[in-house]
Amino acid sequence: MSSSDIFIGETIGTAVLILLGCGVVAGVVLKQSKAFEAGWVAITLGWGFAVLTGAYISAPLSGAHLNPAVTVGLAIEGGIEWNKVPIYFLGQMLGAVIGASLVWLAYLGHFHAHLTDREIVGGPGAQDTVAADRQQQATGAGPVLGVFSTGPEIRNVGQNLATEIIATAVLVLAILTQGLNGDGKGLGVIGVMITAFVVVGIGLSLGGPTGYAINPARDLGPRIAHALLPLPNKGGSDWGYAWIPVVGPLIGGAIAGGIYEIAFA
Amino acid sequence: MSSSDIFIGETIGTAVLILLGCGVVAGVVLKQSKAFEAGWVAITLGWGFAVLTGAYISAPLSGAHLNPAVTVGLAIEGGIEWNKVPIYFLGQMLGAVIGASLVWLAYLGHFHAHLTDREIVGGPGAQDTVAADRQQQATGAGPVLGVFSTGPEIRNVGQNLATEIIATAVLVLAILTQGLNGDGKGLGVIGVMITAFVVVGIGLSLGGPTGYAINPARDLGPRIAHALLPLPNKGGSDWGYAWIPVVGPLIGGAIAGGIYEIAFA
Amino acid sequence: MSSSDIFIGETIGTAVLILLGCGVVAGVVLKQSKAFEAGWVAITLGWGFAVLTGAYISAPLSGAHLNPAVTVGLAIEGGIEWNKVPIYFLGQMLGAVIGASLVWLAYLGHFHAHLTDREIVGGPGAQDTVAADRQQQATGAGPVLGVFSTGPEIRNVGQNLATEIIATAVLVLAILTQGLNGDGKGLGVIGVMITAFVVVGIGLSLGGPTGYAINPARDLGPRIAHALLPLPNKGGSDWGYAWIPVVGPLIGGAIAGGIYEIAFA
Amino acid sequence: MSSSDIFIGETIGTAVLILLGCGVVAGVVLKQSKAFEAGWVAITLGWGFAVLTGAYISAPLSGAHLNPAVTVGLAIEGGIEWNKVPIYFLGQMLGAVIGASLVWLAYLGHFHAHLTDREIVGGPGAQDTVAADRQQQATGAGPVLGVFSTGPEIRNVGQNLATEIIATAVLVLAILTQGLNGDGKGLGVIGVMITAFVVVGIGLSLGGPTGYAINPARDLGPRIAHALLPLPNKGGSDWGYAWIPVVGPLIGGAIAGGIYEIAFA
Repeated sequence: MSSSDIFIGETIGTAVLILLGCGVVAGVVLKQSKAFEAGWVAITLGWGFAVLTGAYISAPLSGAHLNPAVTVGLAIEGGIEWNKVPIYFLGQMLGAVIGASLVWLAYLGHFHAHLTDREIVGGPGAQDTVAADRQQQATGAGPVLGVFSTGPEIRNVGQNLATEIIATAVLVLAILTQGLNGDGKGLGVIGVMITAFVVVGIGLSLGGPTGYAINPARDLGPRIAHALLPLPNKGGSDWGYAWIPVVGPLIGGAIAGGIYEIAFA
Repeated sequence: MSSSDIFIGETIGTAVLILLGCGVVAGVVLKQSKAFEAGWVAITLGWGFAVLTGAYISAPLSGAHLNPAVTVGLAIEGGIEWNKVPIYFLGQMLGAVIGASLVWLAYLGHFHAHLTDREIVGGPGAQDTVAADRQQQATGAGPVLGVFSTGPEIRNVGQNLATEIIATAVLVLAILTQGLNGDGKGLGVIGVMITAFVVVGIGLSLGGPTGYAINPARDLGPRIAHALLPLPNKGGSDWGYAWIPVVGPLIGGAIAGGIYEIAFA
Repeated sequence: MSSSDIFIGETIGTAVLILLGCGVVAGVVLKQSKAFEAGWVAITLGWGFAVLTGAYISAPLSGAHLNPAVTVGLAIEGGIEWNKVPIYFLGQMLGAVIGASLVWLAYLGHFHAHLTDREIVGGPGAQDTVAADRQQQATGAGPVLGVFSTGPEIRNVGQNLATEIIATAVLVLAILTQGLNGDGKGLGVIGVMITAFVVVGIGLSLGGPTGYAINPARDLGPRIAHALLPLPNKGGSDWGYAWIPVVGPLIGGAIAGGIYEIAFA
Repeated sequence: MSSSDIFIGETIGTAVLILLGCGVVAGVVLKQSKAFEAGWVAITLGWGFAVLTGAYISAPLSGAHLNPAVTVGLAIEGGIEWNKVPIYFLGQMLGAVIGASLVWLAYLGHFHAHLTDREIVGGPGAQDTVAADRQQQATGAGPVLGVFSTGPEIRNVGQNLATEIIATAVLVLAILTQGLNGDGKGLGVIGVMITAFVVVGIGLSLGGPTGYAINPARDLGPRIAHALLPLPNKGGSDWGYAWIPVVGPLIGGAIAGGIYEIAFA
């Protein structure tokens, strides 16, 4: 694969992944959406089919990593050369920002309706800015940040890192074994479907504590978009947490690469 | 493929698509249905498997476009000849009207029960026709139109167009890359399954604002059927909105064809 | 395929189909089940994967019809010889009765708990047998019959027949086109998966009015089991409706065979 | 397959199976989880994709039994040699304990929050230890044990055994027929997907009464982990029930092996 194919494939594929992935969260949490409160099964299926769609579109160009943790795992295992890694990363980050911006565009009216609804963000009785901010976090702005980036239910560095490491290791290990499962070279169409269901499974099973970033680009790209895009009363982007869904998945991907090397190769 | 095979395939396939697609909305919104209030996951899975069934049946005859936006995307990309396009369109529109009529037939008792339920459409106290009409829109007749055609939650031409363009571009881009994904010529059975899951994904992720027509025939055909079929108290067919789910998806399909030509070909 | 393979395959396959199919209804409607009130998506996925499991197990032996309407459609289309039809029917009916009996066995404690719960079936204040019977129908015994057989929400011979005919025609048409979809001879594993998703789709989209028998054996076999198996306060087996889910699906299957002959052959 | 590949494959595969399988229960039952109360469809899909992920990863190494009942069924049918059986068992049990421990790690904060929430486990008014213990069983500790191991809704040895035997026989019969379904030798990727959907189906349809262990290692391994791992107020591990989800599935697997030998071989 040429470097330009890799860059274009990862950019388009990750943009589609994030458009559909962050899109399902928008649909479920934003007021006046037909998918409002459609539940956790909707969100996990949505992310799974986001992976399916993005991977299917980009597989012929770049092999469909769409995830720096996958790229790291494959580089450790020897599936790609280390000098291609930065190209993958660049496409993934650019795609993630584009995808999040498309979610912003597709749901713009709903973001506005959600964030400017007086009943949600404080109301006429809100006299204290700090209290109003807290209320926004809990009601209006909190869910809007949740459309873009992940956040833990119980904030604890060690715990949150552990969950992201474990969940990502499962994902990357499943992707690494594709080569052994008779799909031939590259990512076959059955492999795309399997990976999508693996992602649904990880979401259902390990998404509870941190919202399963399991992909540094998936979390950091949309968080940057959240910080840059104009939205009323959007609140902060929770940069204090931002390193965990970057570092955790990278460690998880590396561990999976190591397990693969020891047990399968 | 002969023109008659294309016409027959698209007619039968789109009829099945609309029968099952509009059927799931009927099941979920009409009173006294066993699927009543089964939720957004039911609706999006229902539309996805509607695509799967219609595409699987029609693939051997016409290649299973079932959607003018797909036909346009394929014509731009070069997958079909432009002079076949009108035959595809004709079959798709005819099939969509037939499919919507079969939904009317399969759920006839439920349409009647829903629309003539006094508690729903005004009740004895409704003295003002305009007010009663509004109430019907919100309760009895609104959901019935929603069985047939899409409508936005927040009515805004630019916003609604943008959402339909983005959602359709994802769909058509995924379909265009099938040729590169090793399914060989035509639409393979795995490709049918992938497309179905892509449609579930688009519904979950981008269906919130407008109900994801992403297919001019899917919206216009059933809207014509809604206008023509006898139903008590059915209300208007919202023709003011009707052009958006036609124009938006066609633009989206064309954009996808362009992206494909630039990035993949 | 030998006649004994056909008979054994259809018996085992239909038993598994009905065990899992009626089983999911038992799980969702019977009190003290972990699946209690799991909803319509659970029921339709359950029936879909019931088809998948039964078809996968029986495909190598009998080609996995598991449904007299499918057998009729295939006989009309020429896929099987007419003189094999009675063997298929016999295995399907026997399997359906066995499958329903296994549901009875697997959920026996729950049937008893459900049917003998005083709060459900009348209570100490029920002085009038007719009124108590009606109450049972609506609460205790009605759901129990619903575990075994289908029943309409709006009882109307023409309407109910029409719904079953339309729904079955879609199913059988999808099965008939398998031969054209590159799965080679017999029912391939991808075809099994496609058929399962078609059945989920039909359930979601057309199951609302009558509960989608779409299979004479699926309805009549369990109804016979309901009449024969010992269950306290089980009430009647609604034999007045029993012919509709037999005749409707057979007509639907024949129509699909005819459409296939005209449009595809 | 070498004995060390079998052992490593079964250990890793079963660890992933239990991590995702018990993980989805943790997500749904533990307070402050994003998946809290996501319902029975979430749990059954979660277990199905847990099987998919574990089987996909381990198939190239060990053939992905991940279940002593499957190993027994295959040994009876002749698919594996009896002298390999203990190696399979050993890997499965070790993997199950590891997987359950990873669930403990990934959800540690949530286990603590759930078990030490005063409102849940008795509160200041709880003066009687026995009563408080009962309350824990029903609220705090009961669900936590349910994350690890299965338990019946209606406790009855014969009934519970029958349900586990029937459900496991369906699973193992479906796995045994894979060899006849054109997947070639070993467990193909389509076979992995089929098996996952079969497991979703069994969960939806037959999971209601006992929670469908259908796998001795799936129940016993996590129960041992529950007994050993430090958790506050965790209560007992219900060892009185522990033999049923071991013996029932083994009988079910053996019955499936016998049916296969008689009907298919």
